[in-house]
Amino acid sequence: MGIHQFFMSMNDLERIIRCPGRFKFEEHNVAAHSWKVSQYAMFFATIEENNGATINWKSLYEKTINHDFAEIFIGDIKTPVKHASPELKQMLSHVEEKMMEKFILDEIPTEFQPIFFDRMKEGKDETIEGKLLELADKLDQVYESFAELKRGNTDPEFIHMYEIALTKILHLPLEKSIHYFREVMLKDIMEEDSSIDVKAITLKILAQ
Amino acid sequence: MGIHQFFMSMNDLERIIRCPGRFKFEEHNVAAHSWKVSQYAMFFATIEENNGATINWKSLYEKTINHDFAEIFIGDIKTPVKHASPELKQMLSHVEEKMMEKFILDEIPTEFQPIFFDRMKEGKDETIEGKLLELADKLDQVYESFAELKRGNTDPEFIHMYEIALTKILHLPLEKSIHYFREVMLKDIMEEDSSIDVKAITLKILAQ
Amino acid sequence: MGIHQFFMSMNDLERIIRCPGRFKFEEHNVAAHSWKVSQYAMFFATIEENNGATINWKSLYEKTINHDFAEIFIGDIKTPVKHASPELKQMLSHVEEKMMEKFILDEIPTEFQPIFFDRMKEGKDETIEGKLLELADKLDQVYESFAELKRGNTDPEFIHMYEIALTKILHLPLEKSIHYFREVMLKDIMEEDSSIDVKAITLKILAQ
Amino acid sequence: MGIHQFFMSMNDLERIIRCPGRFKFEEHNVAAHSWKVSQYAMFFATIEENNGATINWKSLYEKTINHDFAEIFIGDIKTPVKHASPELKQMLSHVEEKMMEKFILDEIPTEFQPIFFDRMKEGKDETIEGKLLELADKLDQVYESFAELKRGNTDPEFIHMYEIALTKILHLPLEKSIHYFREVMLKDIMEEDSSIDVKAITLKILAQ
Amino acid sequence: MGIHQFFMSMNDLERIIRCPGRFKFEEHNVAAHSWKVSQYAMFFATIEENNGATINWKSLYEKTINHDFAEIFIGDIKTPVKHASPELKQMLSHVEEKMMEKFILDEIPTEFQPIFFDRMKEGKDETIEGKLLELADKLDQVYESFAELKRGNTDPEFIHMYEIALTKILHLPLEKSIHYFREVMLKDIMEEDSSIDVKAITLKILAQ
Amino acid sequence: MGIHQFFMSMNDLERIIRCPGRFKFEEHNVAAHSWKVSQYAMFFATIEENNGATINWKSLYEKTINHDFAEIFIGDIKTPVKHASPELKQMLSHVEEKMMEKFILDEIPTEFQPIFFDRMKEGKDETIEGKLLELADKLDQVYESFAELKRGNTDPEFIHMYEIALTKILHLPLEKSIHYFREVMLKDIMEEDSSIDVKAITLKILAQ
Repeated sequence: MGIHQFFMSMNDLERIIRCPGRFKFEEHNVAAHSWKVSQYAMFFATIEENNGATINWKSLYEKTINHDFAEIFIGDIKTPVKHASPELKQMLSHVEEKMMEKFILDEIPTEFQPIFFDRMKEGKDETIEGKLLELADKLDQVYESFAELKRGNTDPEFIHMYEIALTKILHLPLEKSIHYFREVMLKDIMEEDSSIDVKAITLKILAQ
Repeated sequence: MGIHQFFMSMNDLERIIRCPGRFKFEEHNVAAHSWKVSQYAMFFATIEENNGATINWKSLYEKTINHDFAEIFIGDIKTPVKHASPELKQMLSHVEEKMMEKFILDEIPTEFQPIFFDRMKEGKDETIEGKLLELADKLDQVYESFAELKRGNTDPEFIHMYEIALTKILHLPLEKSIHYFREVMLKDIMEEDSSIDVKAITLKILAQ
Repeated sequence: MGIHQFFMSMNDLERIIRCPGRFKFEEHNVAAHSWKVSQYAMFFATIEENNGATINWKSLYEKTINHDFAEIFIGDIKTPVKHASPELKQMLSHVEEKMMEKFILDEIPTEFQPIFFDRMKEGKDETIEGKLLELADKLDQVYESFAELKRGNTDPEFIHMYEIALTKILHLPLEKSIHYFREVMLKDIMEEDSSIDVKAITLKILAQ
Repeated sequence: MGIHQFFMSMNDLERIIRCPGRFKFEEHNVAAHSWKVSQYAMFFATIEENNGATINWKSLYEKTINHDFAEIFIGDIKTPVKHASPELKQMLSHVEEKMMEKFILDEIPTEFQPIFFDRMKEGKDETIEGKLLELADKLDQVYESFAELKRGNTDPEFIHMYEIALTKILHLPLEKSIHYFREVMLKDIMEEDSSIDVKAITLKILAQ
Repeated sequence: MGIHQFFMSMNDLERIIRCPGRFKFEEHNVAAHSWKVSQYAMFFATIEENNGATINWKSLYEKTINHDFAEIFIGDIKTPVKHASPELKQMLSHVEEKMMEKFILDEIPTEFQPIFFDRMKEGKDETIEGKLLELADKLDQVYESFAELKRGNTDPEFIHMYEIALTKILHLPLEKSIHYFREVMLKDIMEEDSSIDVKAITLKILAQ
Repeated sequence: MGIHQFFMSMNDLERIIRCPGRFKFEEHNVAAHSWKVSQYAMFFATIEENNGATINWKSLYEKTINHDFAEIFIGDIKTPVKHASPELKQMLSHVEEKMMEKFILDEIPTEFQPIFFDRMKEGKDETIEGKLLELADKLDQVYESFAELKRGNTDPEFIHMYEIALTKILHLPLEKSIHYFREVMLKDIMEEDSSIDVKAITLKILAQ
């Protein structure tokens, strides 16, 4: 019914746990995840900018902090959806979109509705900011699964998550960022002590 | 991959929190909820049996312990869905059903698949056991929201939940059970100390 | 004071933690445990029924969901008691029984007292349902300890728990169920990745 | 098996929750409780000493930090036991004592056994240190229940706990300490904002 | 030792709890707080931009997501410091600054050090972005304390926090934002049900 | 404003977590830590007394239960401070001292202020009780880090903590206590199963 309600609803994202239902040594909420994504994206945007790209910082800021807002409606369900069909995945995206639409029409004052429709739409588009969001979002999956594997979580879900997210990152069309990630950061990741052999998993992916 | 995998997946329901995203003084997981539902249903089935009804205890047992198993796929999302359209609600049920189907075909040995398809289907049908499940499931919403209101949770969501669940119970075609609930138990509920005035809310519903 | 009080007291079992005092990577409450036991028992009862046994489903339902209700009085204390003498164990059972008796006389309406005395009595008797309860209860100890060992819990208590529960299961007079457990499920258990070598522990027990 | 095992077992008391099974806004473990008791006791012993009493500080130190050590065996069960009979209460004390005895004989090196038998015996005796322990232990019940009542916990258990503990304190034969508690501290307690009317409850007890 | 270490350290902020030591019905970590601050700031920056101001979105993005990074060193200690002297407050700021400096020199690659020194410095300067950060940071204190007061937290600390943060907001030189906050949002806040009378507290502040 | 406020503030130490910000499989609060320190100190004081030393039990009691009280002001920050300079460490000690002073002057009745100034001052002095406090405090760091290493925590911080605390203990001028610790207890520690090779780390330290 207004911006106050919108601000209060942000608190809900502190209670939405990522990867719900799986055993994790450490839980992460969607609010904290959004902050980490905004940090990763800022770093890689800096690399791109230093290498001559033009960054629309307002757009990157909007995309990163809003990209998971729709999870206040049905939570974080991507992992089990991956086990289901693309058709189901699409149906769920559609449900989320419709709920977001309904939320903006019901809760946001008319004067701000166009801005919210713009900010809350899917951010992973073909712009450089959309690609940086994709990189940052996948990087947080890499770090979340890496942390579980380091501590000895034997749930194969986290190996899958690490493999899929890492593979997607390595194929992203952000040459300078991916180069830095692969040549510098991935080496540091592989050097860390880890209960489950993350180095071997990483080398296998790099070899593909 | 087998019954071992099915048994392991039950552990996931201990990590699925009911009413996710809302502030609650006390959280409840879906496994514990299922146990409470099986207790409520047994009590009211006893009342119905004592009054001449025939209870299929195997069916009641199956219905109560399995009724929320599908929440391992997309969690407990009913509350926000209530704010959305019936069309979206139906789409989500369809998604859940498809995932359950896929799970049984992928994980349960062929010899047990017919039994699982039967047990995991929607239990709230027109049989007396289906109605007892509906009563028990709504009663747990009454108790969960009552506990929050007693302790002073001012989120209007819990008043809604209490009102809607109580109204549904009072209209269920289980004459003896509802009589006992209304004449005995509801009076005890209204006599409890409560931060938020549950007695007034209840009397308003009874007056309708 | 009535059924309402009885239903409210069920909430207490969501706060009673199994194996209190020991370090665990994941805690389990008695309500969720009771639900898992009712699921395991239903599965093995189905196997027995498919092989010609007659199952009293009402009795199995009653036994499984009520078997740990008395833990609302003194919690889950079996583990430390195992370190003590059988005499102390018997004294504690006696205390629990007396408290249950007092609870029924004080809280349950007279008309329902006979039913509650019947349902709340020790369920692990010589009937097939009593044996299925014993199997299901021990199986949850197997799964709880297995989950800790997988994740690298070095507390020897969990190795003891696994060994003792598994040994008891293998000696239960439920031929078809134990055959299925030993030949199918235990093989799946041994194939899982585990920080502590559960396969070796299992093979040693099978060899005895 | 040795002092190392004894020191490791102390960690268990950090996982034993006081008043298990009841809903509380804030949980307290037995280790932290023991520390608070040792603080309260030191303060009142100072008052007594300042008024001419002789305090055996070594004894007070031993009594306060060890008084709940036996809870590693069967946890904190006093509250439900109070609802049961004195006979059951006595049986449980006996069980606890036997377990403590067994623990010392099994785990503590022979050279230290006499010291441990002395330190681990019931501390609430007729010495001034025993009375100070009783005062301090009851005072922590007053503070634990007061904190729940302040925050609006409507469970009548906490009103009982407050009333019983406060009444016991007011009748303790520690004239100077009780005078200070009644004339100074209790007035501060009654002046605090509280959801549930602690002042009225307190005045009723003082009037008796 | 590199950007990987910097990214890993961000996880630490998910474990730093705001207002440590005080009782809260709900805890907030610094990572989630930073995300909420970045959301509030974006909204008010939009209002300012719509009213003719020029916003440096890159700067606002940097300021909001980094403003509490230094809390990885000594946590969130402002509340108790407010009870102490300004001199101590200044000493602590100095300690934090020195640790931040040391962290950048030790952990961040030389090529990125100038950027990090710039981003990690105190953000609440005299620019419009600095003022928007101040507004957003104080607004989160308003929301955190408001949520506690709504639920009946009687700790006077939260009334203080609400009063001080609200007063600071009302005096910020951001005319359009503060106008919107005061005339629209604050009215919605005062209309909410609340255990502790937030409306009265708010009106008293507005009257000053 | 009085002893009641002082007793209430003790509750805050149950909410101050040791080693904040680092991932731990198990958290410890400062209240429970203080209790464990008082237990270790009593044991080693007994060894010293049995070997002819004179123990001031009142002093030891005071020192152990009060040694971390000042953490109610700025929490447990020693770990990150170790990464910083001795100068910063000293500045923080000074801040803590000033806050303690202010607290006593503001909250403690005048008649008790001299006692509190005495009890709350740094306890690790050159007396035998001061050395026993140092031993006990370091021993709890040994046990806390050992527990993390046993369970597979790969954060190198816990190896550092174990090494530094153990080294300090081995050099303490408490001949009999250290002899017992080294010859008896450390051998038991090295014999425990541990995910990370604590035996090797320990032997390396002993060899220095």
